[in-house]
Amino acid sequence: MGVSLKDVALRAGVSAKTVSNVVNNYPHIRPGTRERVQRAIDELGYRPNATARHLRTGRSGIIALAVPELGNPYFADLAAAVIDAAAHHGHTVLLDHTAGLRANETLVSRGFRSHLIDGLILSPIQLENEDLLRRPDGPPLVLLGEREYDAPYDHIAIDNVAAARLAVRHLIDLGRRRIAFVGARRESLRQPAHLRLRGWREEILRAGGTPSDDLVVATDGYDRADGAAAMTRLLALSEPPDAVFAYNDLVALGALRVLAERGLRVPQDVAVVGFDDIEDGRYAGVSLTTVAPDKAAIARLAVDCLITRIEAAPARAPFVPRRILPGHTLVVRESTTGRATAHD
Amino acid sequence: MGVSLKDVALRAGVSAKTVSNVVNNYPHIRPGTRERVQRAIDELGYRPNATARHLRTGRSGIIALAVPELGNPYFADLAAAVIDAAAHHGHTVLLDHTAGLRANETLVSRGFRSHLIDGLILSPIQLENEDLLRRPDGPPLVLLGEREYDAPYDHIAIDNVAAARLAVRHLIDLGRRRIAFVGARRESLRQPAHLRLRGWREEILRAGGTPSDDLVVATDGYDRADGAAAMTRLLALSEPPDAVFAYNDLVALGALRVLAERGLRVPQDVAVVGFDDIEDGRYAGVSLTTVAPDKAAIARLAVDCLITRIEAAPARAPFVPRRILPGHTLVVRESTTGRATAHD
Repeated sequence: MGVSLKDVALRAGVSAKTVSNVVNNYPHIRPGTRERVQRAIDELGYRPNATARHLRTGRSGIIALAVPELGNPYFADLAAAVIDAAAHHGHTVLLDHTAGLRANETLVSRGFRSHLIDGLILSPIQLENEDLLRRPDGPPLVLLGEREYDAPYDHIAIDNVAAARLAVRHLIDLGRRRIAFVGARRESLRQPAHLRLRGWREEILRAGGTPSDDLVVATDGYDRADGAAAMTRLLALSEPPDAVFAYNDLVALGALRVLAERGLRVPQDVAVVGFDDIEDGRYAGVSLTTVAPDKAAIARLAVDCLITRIEAAPARAPFVPRRILPGHTLVVRESTTGRATAHD
Repeated sequence: MGVSLKDVALRAGVSAKTVSNVVNNYPHIRPGTRERVQRAIDELGYRPNATARHLRTGRSGIIALAVPELGNPYFADLAAAVIDAAAHHGHTVLLDHTAGLRANETLVSRGFRSHLIDGLILSPIQLENEDLLRRPDGPPLVLLGEREYDAPYDHIAIDNVAAARLAVRHLIDLGRRRIAFVGARRESLRQPAHLRLRGWREEILRAGGTPSDDLVVATDGYDRADGAAAMTRLLALSEPPDAVFAYNDLVALGALRVLAERGLRVPQDVAVVGFDDIEDGRYAGVSLTTVAPDKAAIARLAVDCLITRIEAAPARAPFVPRRILPGHTLVVRESTTGRATAHD
């Protein structure tokens, strides 16, 4: 009791600002300094009074990140990147998984933990525009991902149409003519996959082909099991595809697994392209060609955006939602060009 | 301002307890009730005063989970299970990744966020016993994983020696005689993999074999890249192994990738067993035989244990550390018995 930040600074022989940086776990503190400050904290029994700070500033230093599935390596990678980016601003991240369900996404977006958090980054799957429009005043919200909304919130997402066209063009350049799209969803007009599906359609038309509805397979989710089920259906067609563009890498890996079970050769019989560039694809038995969104940039931009909103919040200036497009690349591996020619 | 929990209860036509349950996101609330309470909260502009509650009870309703790597699907699965288990107790989970570094693990175990959290679940890699013994009084701590400590903290881990013996026995039963262990670590006497390594050694001896140090490969980490590098080294031996038991599935998947690149057949030339039962292994080109720890039980036991400690904390009764062993199974797939005979 009664031990202050200044007492700790005095004992450690550093500035109060440095103690604050250590307490808030800022990066880029020299290990020796961190150690000295930590020792002074231990010796004096100092307990940073976040509650008092919270009452004073109205801020907790916590932001929330809500993703559909922590088990999907894409979101695990993204979460790790967001935690790093938030640490640069001295913020802690509270992680939430919504299972991609509208009820959970609505609950999270409405800020059922708004008493804990300064702001929220949400990657929605089923959330509808009306859910966002009905959102009461709450902590700043930044949206991620392919769903597009007509609501006053910042949104960070790569150009999904362009990225999908890049993938499909690669397959067309390799001479593929029956290119399937796996991962459409039925339940919503504004379905999550609609931009990638549009890219698939546009690129086939541009090449003078005819996008065939037979080759668009809806899935219940975006897991390996969904990809495996979809591939099984495609192989039952009288004229199966010679290429698959999958909504994400997990779906693509499920498709690859079924092709292996059937003894079909990848890419000779069927070429496969995924989306996300997760590590699993890099080490698959046949390594996976994929669209790689710039995850570090997505995380950094989302956190920067959110922090700006948090700091501007009291001003409540006219709100102009920002739309930010981080970059993407196509990473070519064995699943489209075979073992001899491609290796990364 | 001035809107109380009771006002919300009155408007929603439910008890104050029910409002509290909704605000704290307890499970098992009927959707209709949750909806009604949420509407009343929105209409009245009620903001639950967690800060006041925190000051009153000294508890935040938050527990922290610190894992070495969120990008490892094992820890992503575990985190999802802990979030579910914590929600059953009305607790929110703050996720932390330590990158398996001693400095970070020490920092986390010392509770640098102890002003935010009621308790901590930590899965350490490099943390040493002395780090734990020097830990100042802080929120309750529950340890997970293979590292064993002589310190007064609860510890939840499967029987790693027995689990490793089960894996090695399976390989011996299949006639394998040169069984490598991949994933030993050099830097510490109490190395994280020591129990699995001991199981490997004991089982080979039991079968009348000789554990050969040539076949024990140290790795820098536990990623696919580490498994790939280790497999490359094993294949350079004058007498390469006919089986590999890997510290975890990621390491095993890296080994599988190198075997595929070299055109070696799995399991005919080299059989492979992993550890963790992550989904990646189930869908690998050659599906992976693996030891499956009961992740749901680990998460449930860890959270139950921690909550008990949190609730008992003020009493400070004589502390008897608990050692709890959840179950495990061996899941046999193609990487040991081939495509024809095993399929799950």
